[in-house]
Amino acid sequence: MQRLRALVESERFQNAIIAVIVLNAVVLGLETSETVMNAAGWLLKLLDRIAVAVFVVEILLKFAVYRWRFFKSAWNVFDFVIVAITFIPAGEGVTVLRALRILRALRLISVVPSMRRVVHALLRAIPGMGSVVTLLALVFYVAGVMATKLFGAAFPEWFGTIGASLYSLFQIMTLESWSMGIVRPVMEVFPLAWLFFVIFILLTTFAVLNLFIAIIVDSMSQEHAAEEAATRGALGSEHDQIMRELKEIRDELRELKGKG
Amino acid sequence: MQRLRALVESERFQNAIIAVIVLNAVVLGLETSETVMNAAGWLLKLLDRIAVAVFVVEILLKFAVYRWRFFKSAWNVFDFVIVAITFIPAGEGVTVLRALRILRALRLISVVPSMRRVVHALLRAIPGMGSVVTLLALVFYVAGVMATKLFGAAFPEWFGTIGASLYSLFQIMTLESWSMGIVRPVMEVFPLAWLFFVIFILLTTFAVLNLFIAIIVDSMSQEHAAEEAATRGALGSEHDQIMRELKEIRDELRELKGKG
Amino acid sequence: MQRLRALVESERFQNAIIAVIVLNAVVLGLETSETVMNAAGWLLKLLDRIAVAVFVVEILLKFAVYRWRFFKSAWNVFDFVIVAITFIPAGEGVTVLRALRILRALRLISVVPSMRRVVHALLRAIPGMGSVVTLLALVFYVAGVMATKLFGAAFPEWFGTIGASLYSLFQIMTLESWSMGIVRPVMEVFPLAWLFFVIFILLTTFAVLNLFIAIIVDSMSQEHAAEEAATRGALGSEHDQIMRELKEIRDELRELKGKG
Amino acid sequence: MQRLRALVESERFQNAIIAVIVLNAVVLGLETSETVMNAAGWLLKLLDRIAVAVFVVEILLKFAVYRWRFFKSAWNVFDFVIVAITFIPAGEGVTVLRALRILRALRLISVVPSMRRVVHALLRAIPGMGSVVTLLALVFYVAGVMATKLFGAAFPEWFGTIGASLYSLFQIMTLESWSMGIVRPVMEVFPLAWLFFVIFILLTTFAVLNLFIAIIVDSMSQEHAAEEAATRGALGSEHDQIMRELKEIRDELRELKGKG
Repeated sequence: MQRLRALVESERFQNAIIAVIVLNAVVLGLETSETVMNAAGWLLKLLDRIAVAVFVVEILLKFAVYRWRFFKSAWNVFDFVIVAITFIPAGEGVTVLRALRILRALRLISVVPSMRRVVHALLRAIPGMGSVVTLLALVFYVAGVMATKLFGAAFPEWFGTIGASLYSLFQIMTLESWSMGIVRPVMEVFPLAWLFFVIFILLTTFAVLNLFIAIIVDSMSQEHAAEEAATRGALGSEHDQIMRELKEIRDELRELKGKG
Repeated sequence: MQRLRALVESERFQNAIIAVIVLNAVVLGLETSETVMNAAGWLLKLLDRIAVAVFVVEILLKFAVYRWRFFKSAWNVFDFVIVAITFIPAGEGVTVLRALRILRALRLISVVPSMRRVVHALLRAIPGMGSVVTLLALVFYVAGVMATKLFGAAFPEWFGTIGASLYSLFQIMTLESWSMGIVRPVMEVFPLAWLFFVIFILLTTFAVLNLFIAIIVDSMSQEHAAEEAATRGALGSEHDQIMRELKEIRDELRELKGKG
Repeated sequence: MQRLRALVESERFQNAIIAVIVLNAVVLGLETSETVMNAAGWLLKLLDRIAVAVFVVEILLKFAVYRWRFFKSAWNVFDFVIVAITFIPAGEGVTVLRALRILRALRLISVVPSMRRVVHALLRAIPGMGSVVTLLALVFYVAGVMATKLFGAAFPEWFGTIGASLYSLFQIMTLESWSMGIVRPVMEVFPLAWLFFVIFILLTTFAVLNLFIAIIVDSMSQEHAAEEAATRGALGSEHDQIMRELKEIRDELRELKGKG
Repeated sequence: MQRLRALVESERFQNAIIAVIVLNAVVLGLETSETVMNAAGWLLKLLDRIAVAVFVVEILLKFAVYRWRFFKSAWNVFDFVIVAITFIPAGEGVTVLRALRILRALRLISVVPSMRRVVHALLRAIPGMGSVVTLLALVFYVAGVMATKLFGAAFPEWFGTIGASLYSLFQIMTLESWSMGIVRPVMEVFPLAWLFFVIFILLTTFAVLNLFIAIIVDSMSQEHAAEEAATRGALGSEHDQIMRELKEIRDELRELKGKG
């Protein structure tokens, strides 16, 4: 078991897995080309099956080593789910499931340490966004219900259901064709509709902007606190040096007093 | 009265209100679905009336406790207005008033303390934006009048009145279809129109950018000042320690001198 | 002369001018409405002439007080030019000149001190942008000539002349309809055109982004330097205090030595 | 040789080269105008050849001075490649090669020192972006393969090949016509397509945002570290002064002790 663990955690093993992931990603990419499929489709399918077999063996080995602790790492769960997708019995959604196989390329993130760090850094920004995201969700829900009730009957394609409204509002928040595509036609029926949409745009862009600022301020103040701590550290060590010197002076003075 | 106040301010009471708000928001959302309305429209209407009754009782209770101080809190006024909307006698604008009922979901912000804090943080950014917003408003007014005079006759749909011009300029500021949708057609009649619109885009995006920067710099310098104050505090306390030590040395010296 | 100067610089005089500017802006705004013009066009025209007369008198008074120093202030030149526009003999460009009269509303900026400060702050950001703007201009010129030579013959409306190309490239930089509106049609004739446009978008957005960052970093580091200087100041004064104390200790020691 | 080197590095020589570059850029710009070409096409062609001759001589001189060290400077390689383009034997791609001649205007960057500095500053931002760009590339590849497999058959123009998909996804990332132009038509065939595209937009804009933030934080923390180092420097020199003073006090004390 100990030797198995050494194997699984060795750099060689990891590099081999990375190679298989990259190869598999290339193979799945080539599968989209009809010319390549006609010429060597059987080879690509074979290579794909080999890659899957390697991934399954990898997970089994890791599971043998770590047992249930295997599932404690979110990255392992990620790997497991991505590989498991391949074995879902496909009925109707065959094409979707086949398309999802390329998600295996994302295993690169879980295997290459520097990529993991980037994703960790990105994820660290999320909790600070929580409260503004909740607020944004609330604004979206309220605006979605209002848009459905106000414009749903006249523009069923855009605002017929809450789902359609939320999608249209997301489009409007990204400012894509919001005026020429949606609001101007709506204004021809409801002349005051601009009031609703302009307020919605101002509110959501202001909220999104504050999301961004929260992340910027957060990463900056982390950098900053480190610098400032270094300054305080320098301050402290210099202070200690002075205090030690002062103590010795007092000692000598006391000695002198005793002598005198 | 004291017991009523304890009730109104208890966590239980607040949680009950939050539950009613969420339930009411879901009910109003379901009302947009025709299938649900056909199946259980009477139930939704009943639940909505109950929710309104709860809100009215809540406000009456709070008013009984706080009297006119009730209206001193902007959040209470917010709650009051949102509930009052329900009782406006609806003539023509029935649909609009019915749509506005979903605004009650925004009461979540006034009831949940963490949401209140986010909104307070967002509002705090506004005063710093005041002067740039005034400047932006001035630029919009001037550009609106100019666009109406220059292009109003030829393009009444976009620049026929000051109102239409301001809306079109807002669209142009968000960069939505500004060129293909508006400026290129205008340039076919007035070949030099690009001069007006490009200057307008540069001016307003530069101003909006500075709005954003003002907010970023503001939040950062608040963080920063706190850190810097901590450093100065550390500095100060270390300084005091040294000064105390020095004083004692002088005292001993004086003693020594007296002795000698 | 001294009394005239006191008058011109008095707050009353300035407030009167502000009132005339606002009134004139409203009058020029109302002129865009046909209904108002039919009802009271003669009144609006009269009010406009009175406003112009006030502005001319104001400038004459200021010129009488300050003589040629009047033109040393950029704001006075700004006021002078804006008022002078009214008296340009209009041949063909009547509508344009009439439209330019609303620029007088911008005099609010030169008259209200708080508005002046905002504009000064905005202008202060410009020198730091100089080098990146030059680079951007160079990229635009090179891309403009290339686009004209490559696509000018096939798409004369968008890239027929350097001027047309620069305008189209500006539109592409703002990302407005760049793909569906321009690059996809171009790609139907020149399949590799995406290479040119994607590189152009990446280059210019990266440059514009760095413009923004330069401004942010600049305003932040100004704030920051002030804070840091305060810390160093605190540091310095505490240091001086310690040094003074140490000097007195040495003096007492010397005294002691002389005594001993 | 020494004199040749002095010549090549003299300011006069550089200014002459700058003049030729600017003149050549203007000439190449004028060549796009048919009227100018008809009137003085022979002159423009002559001037262009003279400019090329000057550039060739310049490079030969520099090569004579620096020998193979010439190619050690990336800027020299840049100049060499840009001039060399002119001499590629043109078969089919004549127009493209002729269009590339305007790239010579970019030599301004390599010749004017202040422009070089700006480009160096921009390039310095790139390494810090490396890991996020890799992640973004991975997301693009995975999304490209998925989009091709899912929507390729139904929308060959947008998602027919991986190349087409990557271009369409780039367009969607810039938010240009993403909804009205692409996703809404796709949703008419695949009603759940919004899921794929909304996730893609959220992922990529979040990643791009983090790119920007990385650059901002990086440039700020450089500024900041310098400031903080200055504070620590001031701290250090003041500390040294105090320590020297303390040492002298101890010396005097020791002397006093010896005396006593």
